Formats: sequence, C-alpha cells, structure tokens
Amino acid sequence: MNFDISSKDNARIKYIKKLISNKSFRDEERRFVVEGLRLCLDAFVSAASIKEVYYTDAICKKFPEKVKELVDSSERVYKVSDEILKSISETRTPQGIVCICEKLDKHFDVNTINITGKFVILEDIQDPANLGTILRTAEALGLDFVVMSRNCCDMYNAKVLRASMGAVFRVRVRSSENLCEDIKVLRTRGAKVYAAVPENSAPPVTSVDWSSFSAVAIGNEGNGLSSELVALCDKKVTIPMLGRAESLNAGMAAGILMWEMMRNSRG
Amino acid sequence: MNFDISSKDNARIKYIKKLISNKSFRDEERRFVVEGLRLCLDAFVSAASIKEVYYTDAICKKFPEKVKELVDSSERVYKVSDEILKSISETRTPQGIVCICEKLDKHFDVNTINITGKFVILEDIQDPANLGTILRTAEALGLDFVVMSRNCCDMYNAKVLRASMGAVFRVRVRSSENLCEDIKVLRTRGAKVYAAVPENSAPPVTSVDWSSFSAVAIGNEGNGLSSELVALCDKKVTIPMLGRAESLNAGMAAGILMWEMMRNSRG
Repeated sequence: MNFDISSKDNARIKYIKKLISNKSFRDEERRFVVEGLRLCLDAFVSAASIKEVYYTDAICKKFPEKVKELVDSSERVYKVSDEILKSISETRTPQGIVCICEKLDKHFDVNTINITGKFVILEDIQDPANLGTILRTAEALGLDFVVMSRNCCDMYNAKVLRASMGAVFRVRVRSSENLCEDIKVLRTRGAKVYAAVPENSAPPVTSVDWSSFSAVAIGNEGNGLSSELVALCDKKVTIPMLGRAESLNAGMAAGILMWEMMRNSRG
Repeated sequence: MNFDISSKDNARIKYIKKLISNKSFRDEERRFVVEGLRLCLDAFVSAASIKEVYYTDAICKKFPEKVKELVDSSERVYKVSDEILKSISETRTPQGIVCICEKLDKHFDVNTINITGKFVILEDIQDPANLGTILRTAEALGLDFVVMSRNCCDMYNAKVLRASMGAVFRVRVRSSENLCEDIKVLRTRGAKVYAAVPENSAPPVTSVDWSSFSAVAIGNEGNGLSSELVALCDKKVTIPMLGRAESLNAGMAAGILMWEMMRNSRG
C-alpha cells in the first residue's frame, strides 16, 4: 500500500520526529528511525523488521531495485515530496529514504554467551560518535560481543547508527541494567576483565595475556571508569603515553585496546 | 586597553565570523580563532601570539587569574556581553572566551627533521574530527611529526582544534604543497614509508619492522590513498579485518597503525 503525505504537520511526520529525538519514546514504541539507503538495507539484511518506509521519487528512480526491496518488505509505504523528506532528515543533503524499524532483540543472557570470546564493556559512553565508532571497530576487529551500561548513549540514536556504519545491527550488544552484576557473572564464568585507566603506573596493555576469555572495560569520556567497577575487575591496564596529551579520546582508546586484545590472542 | 563592543554588527565581530568560517581568509590574514579557556591557554603556552581576546564578565569572575594571563598577553582586549560572545561562539553553551591568534609556523623543512623519527603522512583527510583525533593520538603516542597534504581539511578549523585537544599547537605538522615530492625526499633520507590500504592481501601491520626511521601513509576517508602515492611507498600494509565491516574509520585506522608503529619500535 502506498499512502500519500502532503503536509509536514501530518501525524506520521510528527511521530517520526519524536522517534528521532526522544529515546524514551523509542523505548516505549520499541521502534527507531534509520536514514539513507545503505543503512536501511543494512537493517533489512540484519533481519530488522521494517514497519514504514518514506521515500522520494528521485531515489526510486536512481535505485529502483534497492528501494523496491525495502518497499516490498515494509508494512506501510509512503512516497513523499523532497520537502517532507527533508523535514524528517537528520542530514544536510538527504538521500531520500527513511525507514521506521522495530528494535532488535539485543538482550542476550550473559550466562549463555560463548566462553572463549573476547568482549568489551562500556560504562556510560556519552558521545554518539564514540559509541558508533567503538561498535564499528568491534565488528571490524572481530570481537564476540559488547556489554554496555544502560547509561551509555542510546545505540538507536541516529548519530550512533551512522558512525557505526550499521554495526549496531550486526554486533552482539547487551544493554545491561546492572553492569557490575554482569561483570561478576562473567568473571564467575571464567572471563578475565581488565579495567582501562589513564594511569602510567598501571600495567601496559602489552603485558597482558589475552589468549583466554577476556574483556576490557572502558569508562565515560569525562570521568573514566567508576571506582566501583574498577574494584570488580581482575586488573588495571593502560595504554602507555609518551606525549603531552592528557589521554586519548575514549573511542580511540577503546579501539587500540580492542586491537591489542585481538592481535595478542591471535598470537 | 579594553574596548567595548555593543553590537553584533560590529566590524570586529564580522571579522571573527569570517575567520571562523573561511579558510582562505585565515590563510590571507595568517590568523585563526580559538574558543574556550583551556584551548586558549594551550595556544598561549605553545607560544602562539595572541592578537585579540573577547571575554565575558562571567568567565572573568569565575577564572580571574587565567583570564588575566590571556588578557595581559594580548594586543587587544574586548569585554563583551553574553549575547555578543554567543554570536561568535561555535559551541552550544559558550564558556565565554574567544581569542584571535597568529598562525604558528608549521612549515618545517623535510630535509632537516630527525632521521630516527616516526611519523604519519595524511593524504586529503576531509573530516575535521578525524584530523583532530589523529593529531591528538599522534601526540599521545609520541610520534615525531606529521606531514599532511594541503588538501587535508584545515588544521585551524574550529572542530579540528577542539578534537585535537590543542595537539595542533604542539605537534610538529608540515602542511605539504607536494606530498609525493616530500615522500621522495624522506625516502632518500632513509625513511621507510608504508601505504595503509584496506586490502586483506596486503602484509599485516604486525609483519613490519618499525624500528628504523619510518612512516605510515593514510588516505582520504572515501577514496583511500591515491595510486600515485601508493606507488611511491616502500610497501603496502594493512590492519587485518575479521568482521563484516568494510573497513575502519580513517581516524581509527590511523590510530591503530600509529600505535603499532610506536609499540613495535619500543620492542
């Protein structure tokens, strides 16, 4: 079915805008908004259920087959004007397609995950670009899963989706209600958990044997890891700094630590 | 001297806005704009000559000594209203201080640099956050210098300054008129130059001996390194990928490569 929307005040348009800007509303509705052909197809391929597609005539003419794939799989379809598409777009030069998807079930049980894996724990990462980059890098380097505190920024935030290049859909991510409890469970199950700290006195990341089931925990951009969480970890670990910069950006630190974990475990 | 500015249409305000938004104008004037107390002090400590300071009453009351340091070292000083400061601010919640500085002399000669150094070559990096993060990481990991093509985004762009956390002022950076020519000179002087490529068939970064004078070249976000530049390098090198992501973000790839170069050279 193809519906027509001719006003920016239309209820559907208001609904999309609210989904984009309001995390609580996304949680309530269990839906999120994806923009751009590549990201919409990523969501589709990753088995996200597509509820609504909004697209312009221009993108349909440019990529007829790809748009058809999305249109055919969606419950509702709206062809809209460039102006209306622009009003629900988060980018300066909209590509011409926006989907509403159902949230993926990301709440895997820490009691059932692969016990030889490598994973990363994120405590209260606030910056969407950092979170997206960390997920993208975790996927590229082949980590097994990510556990993030519920106070991290929302992975269904438009900036996170974009920066992750769709890794949000593909990486196993647990949004944890109680990060400290999860760490206890994972350690009981044999995981070694290392707390990343910007302290030159901490053991360097290169001194750790990452060959077994292990993880690194990364803290908030401004405050680092909470002392409660650090106390629950096996050991501190740091990236040795030579220069004058106080520390690396949280996303970069996470990337280097994940790289070391994976490099080292491959021998 | 303390001047008063009471209108957003004032010529000085227009001048600052033009400096912020227009690279050619920054080049012509050989000046750039720094915002925020920390970054302004970073510029001052790094011996950037401060030409003008614009500040509000509020920041002066909050950090009187630090503001005084900047005010005392500046040629001209303007106390402005919150509203005027906001009009020249690039941030949502302005801290209340903006400086105009003279550009630093960054054009060191490739014939005179330390011949045991480690460095990174950047070809046409477009994203300000990437460039800023790369410079911040280069400083933190202790690289000796950075050579960037003149088509990289401008290092005096406000977003680059912020993302670099002031590393722009401290890292030795050469903005190269002819990157290929520079690589030839550096290789003649004994540098090994590796071209970073997202190709699984290329030798992994871990197989390289980074102990001598060496560099890694990073390409543009969308297109990677130009074939002309790759042909001038000693060898290709890659970060082995395990996951489904096509590649890492250019900033992250640069960070992991710089980390490997420094880790490896420390033995």
